[in-house]
Amino acid sequence: MAHDWLWRCVRVLPERGQIGIFNRSYYEEVLAVRGAPDLLEAQSLPASLVSAKIWEQRFQAIRGFERHLARSGTVIRKFFLHVSKKEQKKRLLERLDDPDKHWKFSENDVRQRASWSEYMRAYEDGGARDLDRARAVVRRARGQQVVYARLVVAAAIVDALEELELEYPKVPPGRKKALERARHELMSEK
Amino acid sequence: MAHDWLWRCVRVLPERGQIGIFNRSYYEEVLAVRGAPDLLEAQSLPASLVSAKIWEQRFQAIRGFERHLARSGTVIRKFFLHVSKKEQKKRLLERLDDPDKHWKFSENDVRQRASWSEYMRAYEDGGARDLDRARAVVRRARGQQVVYARLVVAAAIVDALEELELEYPKVPPGRKKALERARHELMSEK
Repeated sequence: MAHDWLWRCVRVLPERGQIGIFNRSYYEEVLAVRGAPDLLEAQSLPASLVSAKIWEQRFQAIRGFERHLARSGTVIRKFFLHVSKKEQKKRLLERLDDPDKHWKFSENDVRQRASWSEYMRAYEDGGARDLDRARAVVRRARGQQVVYARLVVAAAIVDALEELELEYPKVPPGRKKALERARHELMSEK
Repeated sequence: MAHDWLWRCVRVLPERGQIGIFNRSYYEEVLAVRGAPDLLEAQSLPASLVSAKIWEQRFQAIRGFERHLARSGTVIRKFFLHVSKKEQKKRLLERLDDPDKHWKFSENDVRQRASWSEYMRAYEDGGARDLDRARAVVRRARGQQVVYARLVVAAAIVDALEELELEYPKVPPGRKKALERARHELMSEK
């Protein structure tokens, strides 16, 4: 809260050569925060900066930020796993029925279902369009298709890695002789 | 080097209510780095991302980043203190003449003077325009006018603070009585 809303994500960006996974990420700021006005209020923004334009401005910031990352060599893949209202109800009831899933249950999830159409509008207004623009793989994780959704995400990640055309470092010719010598030394050990 | 070039600045951004001072800052990335190709090379960018457009892309990233900060409540003031080539020569010679200034001297500064016009083009190409767009106060810190330049910068900072119309927190009516009681208690101490 003491910083701009992108800051906490930027701080933990992966280094070159590393993969970072952001579960929900700064998209919370244009979706969850948009659906719950008290979350926005808690961000201590000057009143003059809070207007109806704020969500479009945040999408603009996200696009600019990711464009900068991409131009700095970061490959970004975004996944939106859609769950229908009916499917969510089923999953929430499972959490109430099964004692092993009680820990996952939050009254807040039930309360927020009341704003379902509000959230959907937020997704459609900017989220979906924005995800699409960034070559996101958007899949529907409905019903028993959770396993399928996971496969699709895994395949997209494999594709992204293959597109990088990564190679093991090439061994310079001189080095090969040294490797042969080392083999010889190991084999002649008593 | 393990991160995008904005990252190290973002990490140390001041919290709400704090003032941060960036000496040179990410403008190094469009000025110093532009003037010295080996600095860009050291950033390990994929070759496909390094083109003639890279400087304009970096200015775009800076503008987007600062727009995001401004919309998050950060007040930004940028200062560009210009020194002429003649004045720089005088200052470098002073560092060679005065033993107390030897520590400040770097052969690198002399070497980079050879690219003076290159640097000036970089400033004019994007730097000056960009600074202006962000309501920067650009002053010439020439000759004996260093004291004057400092005054101008200080005045701009005072202006920025005054524009925030900061106030001490208001004490609620009930609290006043509690303060009076505390005064009474302090005064009646033996």
